[in-house]
Amino acid sequence: MTQPYTATTQSHNPSMLSRKFGQEIVNYFSGSPLNRVSFLRSNTAFLRAALPRSKFLLLRDLEPLAASKTTLAWVGYETVRALVGNPFNAEEEEFLREYDSRVEIPTLVFLGVNEGDEDRGEERFEFEGEGEKYAGRPCFALDVTGEGRSLKEECGKVQEEAVKGAEGREFRKVRLDLGLAPPDAAILAQARSLLDWNNRNQFCAACGARTVSINAGTKRVCPPTDKAFQKNLQDPPFERPPCISRKGIHNIAFPRTDPTVIMAIVNSIGDKILLGRQRRWPKDFYSTLAGFCEPAESVEDAVRRETWEESGVRVGRVVIHSTQPWPYPANLMMGAIGEAFPDGEGIVLKHDPELEDAQWVELGQVRSALEGNTGTPDSKAEGAVEGQLRLPPSTAIAHQLLLAVVNGFHLAKP
Amino acid sequence: MTQPYTATTQSHNPSMLSRKFGQEIVNYFSGSPLNRVSFLRSNTAFLRAALPRSKFLLLRDLEPLAASKTTLAWVGYETVRALVGNPFNAEEEEFLREYDSRVEIPTLVFLGVNEGDEDRGEERFEFEGEGEKYAGRPCFALDVTGEGRSLKEECGKVQEEAVKGAEGREFRKVRLDLGLAPPDAAILAQARSLLDWNNRNQFCAACGARTVSINAGTKRVCPPTDKAFQKNLQDPPFERPPCISRKGIHNIAFPRTDPTVIMAIVNSIGDKILLGRQRRWPKDFYSTLAGFCEPAESVEDAVRRETWEESGVRVGRVVIHSTQPWPYPANLMMGAIGEAFPDGEGIVLKHDPELEDAQWVELGQVRSALEGNTGTPDSKAEGAVEGQLRLPPSTAIAHQLLLAVVNGFHLAKP
Repeated sequence: MTQPYTATTQSHNPSMLSRKFGQEIVNYFSGSPLNRVSFLRSNTAFLRAALPRSKFLLLRDLEPLAASKTTLAWVGYETVRALVGNPFNAEEEEFLREYDSRVEIPTLVFLGVNEGDEDRGEERFEFEGEGEKYAGRPCFALDVTGEGRSLKEECGKVQEEAVKGAEGREFRKVRLDLGLAPPDAAILAQARSLLDWNNRNQFCAACGARTVSINAGTKRVCPPTDKAFQKNLQDPPFERPPCISRKGIHNIAFPRTDPTVIMAIVNSIGDKILLGRQRRWPKDFYSTLAGFCEPAESVEDAVRRETWEESGVRVGRVVIHSTQPWPYPANLMMGAIGEAFPDGEGIVLKHDPELEDAQWVELGQVRSALEGNTGTPDSKAEGAVEGQLRLPPSTAIAHQLLLAVVNGFHLAKP
Repeated sequence: MTQPYTATTQSHNPSMLSRKFGQEIVNYFSGSPLNRVSFLRSNTAFLRAALPRSKFLLLRDLEPLAASKTTLAWVGYETVRALVGNPFNAEEEEFLREYDSRVEIPTLVFLGVNEGDEDRGEERFEFEGEGEKYAGRPCFALDVTGEGRSLKEECGKVQEEAVKGAEGREFRKVRLDLGLAPPDAAILAQARSLLDWNNRNQFCAACGARTVSINAGTKRVCPPTDKAFQKNLQDPPFERPPCISRKGIHNIAFPRTDPTVIMAIVNSIGDKILLGRQRRWPKDFYSTLAGFCEPAESVEDAVRRETWEESGVRVGRVVIHSTQPWPYPANLMMGAIGEAFPDGEGIVLKHDPELEDAQWVELGQVRSALEGNTGTPDSKAEGAVEGQLRLPPSTAIAHQLLLAVVNGFHLAKP
């Protein structure tokens, strides 16, 4: 049998918000305990075998069912059977042949197998692929949002059943500062991004026809036929107009992730960091600058462009520090540290008027704030002092970048 | 006046395929000499003033008009005027009110201003924003693909006129090994990604209706009305069905970039690198492993997952080295270096059968190949020896990652 893939990540200590992986920073929302086994998503034999042995994470309006403030809740197949049925009974080809745009299918996404899951007295689930065995608890995410769906009643029943499954269970908003344990946060991030992507992409960007989810929720295709327009049962399938997305490989068929940059910019002498504040943030809350990567732009170039556009500061060397998934809805934050040019440190806010303020702040002041005065724009941590510089919590990559700079990271890099 | 933004990138030497920026590697397809001034794309006063003073890069089937093997060709407004007209005469709000899905609009994308462009005897173009001045040659990309378009005749005329503008001009395929100078390659990458994105996203993923390009080609929206369905001129505008994309901000309105990982994996002793070969490559051609980032997956986690899925090798620490835009059609390659676990070095190709072979190769052999035996799967460099390990050229980030490892990068990182 193959060695467990997640041996690398299982050693984490869930009580640490930011875990070190060797000398690598593992940011919040990453480091999932699940093995995605992405190559098994189109293997219907695997999916058929896994489904009744799986556990399911339910999301309502993208908020997960939680067992407590720190832990997600999971339900078994029996709770969701009436809603999801047996969607993997047919091979994908047959499933697409039967496509009927009138029928709403609940969004069910395969997340991966949890190789370290306790077996709760049951036999461990195992599947043999091409001579290799995969073992562990299979995990799915299921959208039970009822509002505006034809499946409203069925969704309502699943919600009700699931909530009464144990004391304290409820659908909870998840934010950086609300305490969900890191492994659960990483699982939720994957579930949330994929359900949201399925919701937002109900139609084909190439031809405008309805799309349908295959590969266990990780691919959407534009079916060639639609039974909704077939007049009689004995007629041949109704053929939709041709669509380029049906030939070759198109990125519009796959989930979308938007790369962003977030950067701690250091002045040329190395004693100050550039911080900025958005209009809607409280007066004492600051963070690192950030923005979206553009088409055909390296992360390093995006750091230089965004810094100049938002603050007027011109940046030379850029080093990438670590990355953080950001499931609101589907960003990937590339954390970097950059050095300003000696003659490029003047602040100009008038190019892109996104920030209300940007300032060079001394390392000592940043260090103090990281140690005692953190929070989010909406809530300050216990013990934080009103009127003093407040910075993001350690679950935010911004915090980790600032910490790296005050600890000398940018100077140590070759 | 504001200091030129591109002072940072103008110092590059176009004769170097891979340029160092301080101690940062600037990969091919990045390091554009253009300032994107992204905040000016929705400023119609700027666009109106810039258009007649701009130069235009023409693409046909995503291939650029080139002046030579190493240089792009540009044309002036007079060459494209009949095709593009004055699209920025109306404010965007008014433009959307007049939306008519029957009218095909040529895809025109604002790329940025070239602050270092020679002025060819003309007065330098300047624009004053909110108290800040922007100067340099404005640059646009224009799709002149005629086939299958209602604008076929107009596109054909522009192509003809442009090609005869100077000796040697032709529409050229651009690949890594074909010699386009790095600054031109970076400009082409931006143009190609944006035209392709506009082509692929003619319909709204949220509701299926036709979309239209605004913000000078960098945003697509689902207009609320359509004159194509308005029976009489005096009728109120025909209202399309409601669409969620018209409220709030949706990533489906913005260009898509797909983050990918590419990684040089080193064994735990540090004397070998993991290389793989795809089925369609020649027997002696190998490269680093690579794959797509998944939703809510950090780059570091994606490196570990892809390496395990493709080769069975389990990876611990991952450090990000540099990034490279890959405009085929819109990838962003995150180059990383990772270390295998001592007990995770066994090669298994049966998980995801994407690679035909994967091998641990000694650093010395990799160094020799980088020095003398490079090329692409389709063509080997001059002097390359048949039957010996062949690796990608220096324009590929794979080459830069391997070079970094043989030069000790992974060991030097904190």
